[in-house]
Amino acid sequence: MKIIIVGGVAAGAKAAAKSRRLLDNDSEIILYTDDTHVSYSSCGIPYYIQNNFTDYKTLLVRSPEEFEASGVKIKLRHKVIKILPESKQILVKDLATKSASLDYYDKLILATGASPVIPNIKNVWYKNIFTVRTIEDAINIKNKLSTTKRAVILGGGYIGLEMLEALVRSNIYCVLIERGKYLMSHLDTDMSECVKEQLNLISENHFNIITEDSVIEFRGDSEGITGVITENGLDIDADIAIICAGVRPNIELATDCGIKIGETGAIFTNNRMETSIRDIYACGDCAETNFAISNTAAWQPLGSTANKQGRCAAINACGGDEIFMGVLGSAVTRCLKLSISMTGLTEKRAEQLGIPIITSTVTKSDKVGYMPDAKNITVKLIANAENGKLLGGQAVGAGDTDKRINSLTGAILGGLTVKECSK
Amino acid sequence: MKIIIVGGVAAGAKAAAKSRRLLDNDSEIILYTDDTHVSYSSCGIPYYIQNNFTDYKTLLVRSPEEFEASGVKIKLRHKVIKILPESKQILVKDLATKSASLDYYDKLILATGASPVIPNIKNVWYKNIFTVRTIEDAINIKNKLSTTKRAVILGGGYIGLEMLEALVRSNIYCVLIERGKYLMSHLDTDMSECVKEQLNLISENHFNIITEDSVIEFRGDSEGITGVITENGLDIDADIAIICAGVRPNIELATDCGIKIGETGAIFTNNRMETSIRDIYACGDCAETNFAISNTAAWQPLGSTANKQGRCAAINACGGDEIFMGVLGSAVTRCLKLSISMTGLTEKRAEQLGIPIITSTVTKSDKVGYMPDAKNITVKLIANAENGKLLGGQAVGAGDTDKRINSLTGAILGGLTVKECSK
Repeated sequence: MKIIIVGGVAAGAKAAAKSRRLLDNDSEIILYTDDTHVSYSSCGIPYYIQNNFTDYKTLLVRSPEEFEASGVKIKLRHKVIKILPESKQILVKDLATKSASLDYYDKLILATGASPVIPNIKNVWYKNIFTVRTIEDAINIKNKLSTTKRAVILGGGYIGLEMLEALVRSNIYCVLIERGKYLMSHLDTDMSECVKEQLNLISENHFNIITEDSVIEFRGDSEGITGVITENGLDIDADIAIICAGVRPNIELATDCGIKIGETGAIFTNNRMETSIRDIYACGDCAETNFAISNTAAWQPLGSTANKQGRCAAINACGGDEIFMGVLGSAVTRCLKLSISMTGLTEKRAEQLGIPIITSTVTKSDKVGYMPDAKNITVKLIANAENGKLLGGQAVGAGDTDKRINSLTGAILGGLTVKECSK
Repeated sequence: MKIIIVGGVAAGAKAAAKSRRLLDNDSEIILYTDDTHVSYSSCGIPYYIQNNFTDYKTLLVRSPEEFEASGVKIKLRHKVIKILPESKQILVKDLATKSASLDYYDKLILATGASPVIPNIKNVWYKNIFTVRTIEDAINIKNKLSTTKRAVILGGGYIGLEMLEALVRSNIYCVLIERGKYLMSHLDTDMSECVKEQLNLISENHFNIITEDSVIEFRGDSEGITGVITENGLDIDADIAIICAGVRPNIELATDCGIKIGETGAIFTNNRMETSIRDIYACGDCAETNFAISNTAAWQPLGSTANKQGRCAAINACGGDEIFMGVLGSAVTRCLKLSISMTGLTEKRAEQLGIPIITSTVTKSDKVGYMPDAKNITVKLIANAENGKLLGGQAVGAGDTDKRINSLTGAILGGLTVKECSK
């Protein structure tokens, strides 16, 4: 038995570790990645940058040496460039030597991840323009911080806001530019407005948020940027720019060999994480899955999901029978003093799906008001207007938003109604 | 329509406010209480004592004047001493004038609460021995603190541990004496052990915890105590003693008029909060309810439950149709750096009920280890061994235990299995 895994950040690394535990020592497990590191927490990068910890190695979950010691072969800087499903072979290029070689698999697990979207901006090849994805990105950004006074962040989603926190806490003045009307645009617009209002309240002279504008040109020269020019004519000084314009799934390898792509643009999988081609699995940020309560296609590129899918793919590849039950869109983040959480369907998503809904939004203290650390949060609940079942929730505020959203998750999955939840 | 409510801390006050909102202005709502205050948070007393806020009025939810302005008559220091269900009358004694009078009701809501258990200890009538229940208790304890150096706390349940925190944070040396083998004895014994171990680790020279011993005599004179003598022969100096030996439901009024008492010793109610006598409701700490997942009798004297039951009783008394769906035993507390949470069935309770169970206990960081505020918590999960459904959970540690237990609550009520919860 020989399992080949392509990609090794979260899903791939988890699949490798799980396969190793399931298979006997005669079996072979090889992990190929074009990255310089394997098994690390991408989510932790903004906290490394703001010096919550000083050594990037803290982000590493399991080193290549640990993998090798357990019997998993790790091939760093090896890019799989073609899959040949009929002969169960793959073509691999060693990025150091540039030479290609063939390998074969009994089972193939694709965990190719996602890549940052790089907008089509003039001079985007200038130095000191970064994305936030790999350990190398993290090290490069941190190395540059000591000479950085001003930064521009392109994009106001999760990573944009987390990088805003990281840079502001590093005493760097930031301008965050979001092309759309709303920050955190996967929230409902009323909650997005709430995020923006509250961030503006705490911005003081540390940062500025601009919406409905976008960078069209990087100013500077080949030695590095000195600023950005926006579509609305703003000219903003900046020593660095951080591109946080979203990610797209890495599907080229799959597309090339005829694996079916789902409606979200990620690799289609069934609930066993099997792709449309026999003995090939996909998991993590490259894979499409289903949304638990609506049973519609979903793509949720998050580390927590990647780990669970990697585990499920490995169990099935090793001959077991495991079901991945879909995602619920649960996510939590923080930007400075502001906490943002969500789970389940948003109002806008429910409307797209034609589900009749009723919503309620309340702003209240996160704990009883006489406790000295009580802080306000705004919570929005979305329920089915016909049967009262909870469908989703979003929470924004200085208090504990995740606590509220966490409890909602079980209630939604369990099919509880609003009334049953008052227990 | 005339509604009489007996008792006014949480359930009674909630029932009065809710009734007022439901009924027209011709209807009469009268609340009798033998207390000097109405509508307050008992749970907040330990935080008032440790000066998280300085004015006891912060504990008051709604003043008698606010009630009167909304059209609810509040009769403080009026003790209802008899119910005459056949004529729908009650006999009320004015505690100031000592005179009794009759009143009549269309609907009667009993929210008589619970009273602290006072153990049979020699000299228990000495001064500076307190219970922790009413606003008067709170004021009396706080007034005494400036001349207090050492305290003895009798009982190691919720209130005992919360008062330990309150007094230690007021720079008072405490000895907590628990008669049984375990602190927080409604937890499973392994988790109780965990509580004790962790408290001992942080006790330094601030407090001492003694189990399997009990106070048999208060030392001192009629001017006040100077210490306590225990069954095992310890002689401990103390300026004050706090009795936290649990509470019992105030059922005398109900028993006297023939209202059925449940197996837990509290007033039997159905899921509409109706007692066995027509047009008489019971809610809050005096009332028995059912445990949601086992459908067995339960008595959960907590403010959160009292408020929900008071609301339910009022809706039904006012002609509506509301169901109280039972309790799940969810409770959270804190003692200094230690957080303690639970929900659902414990292992020992499940065994009593003959439910086959499987448990798992894990000690891990409450968030990803590289975050600077990550702290350990020990989480125990209890699931049905036959169908995998979650039944309960307990968590103890320096980190966020309530976050974990909160999410469990919805999952248990929704009937989710352990596997379904890994989503």
